[in-house]
Amino acid sequence: MIVIGIDPGTALTGYGIVEETQAGQLRAIEYGIIETSSAQSLEKRLEKLNQSLSQLLILHSPESGAVEKLFFNRNVRTAMSVGQARGVILLALAEAGIEVEEYSPSEIKQAVTGYGGADKNQVQQMVRTLLSLDTIPQPDDVADALAVAICHINSNRFKRIIQENRG
Amino acid sequence: MIVIGIDPGTALTGYGIVEETQAGQLRAIEYGIIETSSAQSLEKRLEKLNQSLSQLLILHSPESGAVEKLFFNRNVRTAMSVGQARGVILLALAEAGIEVEEYSPSEIKQAVTGYGGADKNQVQQMVRTLLSLDTIPQPDDVADALAVAICHINSNRFKRIIQENRG
Repeated sequence: MIVIGIDPGTALTGYGIVEETQAGQLRAIEYGIIETSSAQSLEKRLEKLNQSLSQLLILHSPESGAVEKLFFNRNVRTAMSVGQARGVILLALAEAGIEVEEYSPSEIKQAVTGYGGADKNQVQQMVRTLLSLDTIPQPDDVADALAVAICHINSNRFKRIIQENRG
Repeated sequence: MIVIGIDPGTALTGYGIVEETQAGQLRAIEYGIIETSSAQSLEKRLEKLNQSLSQLLILHSPESGAVEKLFFNRNVRTAMSVGQARGVILLALAEAGIEVEEYSPSEIKQAVTGYGGADKNQVQQMVRTLLSLDTIPQPDDVADALAVAICHINSNRFKRIIQENRG
């Protein structure tokens, strides 16, 4: 299965498209950032973000998507700005018929490192290792997006195992 | 000129489409709310909001749009939620090629009542009076959206006068 993990931001949105192979291996298909220019109006930036993501979804046809759950520890200005980016990202996924799961920061850390209280560097190192990458993807937004994607794959794997044991 | 004022929210978005006639009179063309059901997923709700607004824009072809400026006095959870709705609203306007202006709460109060510190009820009464409506539009989100639209028309009128005096 192919999933996309996304770390939303108006200026910089990280994305990571990850495949779980038949053999259960993880493979990074593509990852990077969608950038918008502060020289443009807010609505044009949101349009570019929505369109760029829609193109990625058409190109790679992920089966499902994942974003970090709403967090409430940042300031109100940041929350509003992230919210706007998140809105047009969730919309692009809905328009592509892709369901979205949300995971809390500790769920993501737990899934990637085995420990919900892991620090940023530990998460990034594990992302690199799990995806057999030469270096840690930069900027942080990309590594974060890949971490959400890995968390989503692990969560689906876990659900599948439970269903198989039930069936 | 025809403008649309919008008061964003995921559950409830108010809108007001207002025309300034050749004679300089204000006329409410249509106003109401776009509602989404909490039984649906967040991404489906944002999709419905975006689509409903896009339909209104096609139907009434406003020349420009206006929303309240980012406010920072609410809590982070509200800001994130309003931000998501605001994102897909600004996107619908950008997709329709409609420019958006933002006004602060005090600019809106000033434009509608002549006093930047007016209370909610004074603003609502003036919206009713300026648009010659029998009653105050309900819920508050609709009156707020109409107030933004009126503020936008006044602001454009003011800019026009300055340009004419220059030319």
